Amino acid sequence: MSKFVITIGREAGSGGLEIARKLASALDVPCYDRELIAIVAEQRGVSTDILEKADEVKAKPWDSPAIVGMPSFNDKVFSLQAEIIREKAESESCVIVGRCADQLLKRRDDLLSVFIHAEPEFRLRRIMEEHKIGRDDAARLMKRTDKNRRAYYQYYTDRTWGERTAYDMILNSGKLGIDCVVATILKVIEETAK
Amino acid sequence: MSKFVITIGREAGSGGLEIARKLASALDVPCYDRELIAIVAEQRGVSTDILEKADEVKAKPWDSPAIVGMPSFNDKVFSLQAEIIREKAESESCVIVGRCADQLLKRRDDLLSVFIHAEPEFRLRRIMEEHKIGRDDAARLMKRTDKNRRAYYQYYTDRTWGERTAYDMILNSGKLGIDCVVATILKVIEETAK
Repeated sequence: MSKFVITIGREAGSGGLEIARKLASALDVPCYDRELIAIVAEQRGVSTDILEKADEVKAKPWDSPAIVGMPSFNDKVFSLQAEIIREKAESESCVIVGRCADQLLKRRDDLLSVFIHAEPEFRLRRIMEEHKIGRDDAARLMKRTDKNRRAYYQYYTDRTWGERTAYDMILNSGKLGIDCVVATILKVIEETAK
Repeated sequence: MSKFVITIGREAGSGGLEIARKLASALDVPCYDRELIAIVAEQRGVSTDILEKADEVKAKPWDSPAIVGMPSFNDKVFSLQAEIIREKAESESCVIVGRCADQLLKRRDDLLSVFIHAEPEFRLRRIMEEHKIGRDDAARLMKRTDKNRRAYYQYYTDRTWGERTAYDMILNSGKLGIDCVVATILKVIEETAK
């Protein structure tokens, strides 16, 4: 099979991470999600706890540095992650979750950029189950996560999160089912390798 | 294979119709595009020429009937097409191109709604070739066709044309290639029939 990089953007609770891990497992390649934070932490000797607060979150106005025009801590974390994403995409076939990877890698011929979405009810139920929380807490978490991801994507790429022109495939995991989504993406990888 | 209905929304020049015909042929089911106009013409004894002017075009303000609240000719053509689309979807597996079929049939469990898009350059080249016209004429035709489809979809469905929440799959035919898109949709039909 030729070299490829699959990027997975995803709405909160849509199963994007599960799909990414299943794809990586089926294709026997690494999957990068929070792993990227661990790599930054290791390379820079910074605690993962601090880095995780800036992961896929753009700086809030009150987090901005005192000097206008200086990059915020979140900007620095984004840049370090971007560097690692580009290195990984260059050196190996892999699956990368979120973190604007589709736009960071958009000039690569071997990129397949995917976005996963689903109806709110499907996503709510998954979040309740995953986090063992009630409906109201799950609804708040879903809303906040999507809001952060949308703002982060918009800020670092100047594109609209989940808008069709930014992706090669957009799939509804609630309608198709997680395993069907995995099989469909595998089919595209197989077809484009021909 | 269980019964299914595939609806294909498409940007002008994206190859949506070719994809629909290839799917229908591979699945050995009918494909409805302009055929819907021919059926309306036959059932109502109206000339196809007149009907085609109202096909996938919402009425312009100057086409509205003199009495406010009366349906325009375009509205009547939409209603007749909608009736036939619902009948066909009820009675047989088929592929239906455009005409808001995804929203007309959205309550059906056997629906797979697909939207096809591509970069403008890919679409321009296809339109130039298909219509044997120059670049400028192709660009105008592409813009006008998309504008009409967008307005028609918005008017009859109150949804945004090509926006992810309205579709099960959105595929970039320019990036993936027409045959890969066909194979991918076939894979979904095969998976969901399991």
